[in-house]
Amino acid sequence: MDDEGAHLVAEVADCIQIGARNMQNYSLLKTVGKINKPVLLKRGMAATIQDLLLSAEYVLAEGNPNVILCERGLRSFDSTSRNLFDLTAIPVVHQLSHLPIVADPSHGTGRRDKVTPMGRAAVAAGADGIIVEVHPHPDRALSDGAQSLNAEQFGEMMRQLRRVAEAVDRQIAGAGAGVA
Amino acid sequence: MDDEGAHLVAEVADCIQIGARNMQNYSLLKTVGKINKPVLLKRGMAATIQDLLLSAEYVLAEGNPNVILCERGLRSFDSTSRNLFDLTAIPVVHQLSHLPIVADPSHGTGRRDKVTPMGRAAVAAGADGIIVEVHPHPDRALSDGAQSLNAEQFGEMMRQLRRVAEAVDRQIAGAGAGVA
Amino acid sequence: MDDEGAHLVAEVADCIQIGARNMQNYSLLKTVGKINKPVLLKRGMAATIQDLLLSAEYVLAEGNPNVILCERGLRSFDSTSRNLFDLTAIPVVHQLSHLPIVADPSHGTGRRDKVTPMGRAAVAAGADGIIVEVHPHPDRALSDGAQSLNAEQFGEMMRQLRRVAEAVDRQIAGAGAGVA
Amino acid sequence: MDDEGAHLVAEVADCIQIGARNMQNYSLLKTVGKINKPVLLKRGMAATIQDLLLSAEYVLAEGNPNVILCERGLRSFDSTSRNLFDLTAIPVVHQLSHLPIVADPSHGTGRRDKVTPMGRAAVAAGADGIIVEVHPHPDRALSDGAQSLNAEQFGEMMRQLRRVAEAVDRQIAGAGAGVA
Repeated sequence: MDDEGAHLVAEVADCIQIGARNMQNYSLLKTVGKINKPVLLKRGMAATIQDLLLSAEYVLAEGNPNVILCERGLRSFDSTSRNLFDLTAIPVVHQLSHLPIVADPSHGTGRRDKVTPMGRAAVAAGADGIIVEVHPHPDRALSDGAQSLNAEQFGEMMRQLRRVAEAVDRQIAGAGAGVA
Repeated sequence: MDDEGAHLVAEVADCIQIGARNMQNYSLLKTVGKINKPVLLKRGMAATIQDLLLSAEYVLAEGNPNVILCERGLRSFDSTSRNLFDLTAIPVVHQLSHLPIVADPSHGTGRRDKVTPMGRAAVAAGADGIIVEVHPHPDRALSDGAQSLNAEQFGEMMRQLRRVAEAVDRQIAGAGAGVA
Repeated sequence: MDDEGAHLVAEVADCIQIGARNMQNYSLLKTVGKINKPVLLKRGMAATIQDLLLSAEYVLAEGNPNVILCERGLRSFDSTSRNLFDLTAIPVVHQLSHLPIVADPSHGTGRRDKVTPMGRAAVAAGADGIIVEVHPHPDRALSDGAQSLNAEQFGEMMRQLRRVAEAVDRQIAGAGAGVA
Repeated sequence: MDDEGAHLVAEVADCIQIGARNMQNYSLLKTVGKINKPVLLKRGMAATIQDLLLSAEYVLAEGNPNVILCERGLRSFDSTSRNLFDLTAIPVVHQLSHLPIVADPSHGTGRRDKVTPMGRAAVAAGADGIIVEVHPHPDRALSDGAQSLNAEQFGEMMRQLRRVAEAVDRQIAGAGAGVA
């Protein structure tokens, strides 16, 4: 993703995602700060929460107030999971910032069968939404198949998330995974 | 804690806790394996889940089947929290082992106002219980006051945990924090 | 640093440095791969050595063979040093790749009085060069003063590095810090 | 290793080694503090240097002044090496403490062909000695063979270390690896 790519994406997408490896690509952050689209900013794999908030400032300072933060897991010594999913980031961000924070249990765990329980945990911790990878045939996916749900698994996960959301006085709108 | 201490504790306590710094103290693990009391084995601060399960084997191999595992957070570069609370350990342990696993959001976060949301997340992830530090006057606690709840905060946390437990089809028994 | 910045730097500089935060900025890597200047590629703060070598491939694949790798320290839980200086990266890179690798003891330690001993260690481990921050008045430096040497300290360091270089059958050319 | 083991070892050994997993086994530290033998205290795999120095205090406080600290590598996300060898610990300990510090490039790297270059780096960083695993037939070793040198490799390493030691104004005494 570069400046030109950001403009191309903005023409067709509802939201521009800045991936973990670009969290401190300050040139790109400034570019998307000038585009009139929401920005999903993923936490870098060794970024502190302060680093994440400071990166968000580059977008905000250019005039784009619509930044959504995303916890997607940190690099770790334990290969049981793909990343170390730091859900404490959720209440920490809520204390330090007005920005919403969503969680990505697909990258956060890297294992299909861990996505639903950790999605539940994210909602219970107060996440403002989750992003999750879904594929009609995960085993044939060109990338990230090991962490993708199929349609049936996604439906079951959403059913479970609705119950947890209610238990923490949140509501899940429509068919998406946003929590209101 | 040493062998003599383990026997002293066993005389008066219902459960013997092996702290994170002793998770690989194999002599102590063998000692508590020969004592007829449940053992709460806390994960070391840089231990993989496999390390934790292998440590539990030292207790089990001596004939004590009552081992409870505990996630209490890993060492991290981000000082926002005292430790990096690895809740993915819960579904991972449930997949790999028959042993129950509880979570310690007090050590896992180190901050009083993060204990309740992360306790909720632990229950939503499937924890079989939580352990939490409570003190009548946390600010006067001799240790760990910053992560201790007072009685009122504890009551409020339990009220919230009950709702989350129901949402994941678990029940919280009596006044304690065990999840059935 | 972005594509435009890379071209501006290339007009006046002998070498283009890609900082740790841009190690996986693939668009920038491709851009400098098309510029006829040597590229100093710094390891990201949570990058494996394989990640570093794969990032170098983006530059090489565009036709620029002059890539110099740089170890500058990893993110760590111990705040005694600014970063965790991973000198084992030097023999590992020498085994896996034909590319030269230099070490940055200034960022690697973040403390002025640790730069010289860790510069010596880097040379002894086989580094093909070091990069070091020097300032006439480090206490007045606009950035990184705490890890900068003054001219006298730099001279003393170079005197020590020459002796270590000889002990490992390398030679230090001219006034710079390259090791031949 | 436990209290009884420490006394058994002390009967026959010149030095008692406390391994990384026991660095915070305070009962054991107190026990060896009362035995009249030097203690080699290895840094835990997620211990800060301050943690290491505080563990040494448990030995010193019992009256045993002969504590040797040892850097043996930290847990890391990069499986290229067995551990992440933190040689900056050497000048840091020299600044903060009067205690000697040695380095263990065998555990620090876990790979036979990395032991010699990282042994050289340790001496150049100012290590007061190194400990290294040697086996007549490393491929038949019951443990740690992958990081053990054979006799010929050990001889070659010592030849190289002597040259580096001279370059930093230290001398290697006799056949051992101590640096005076």
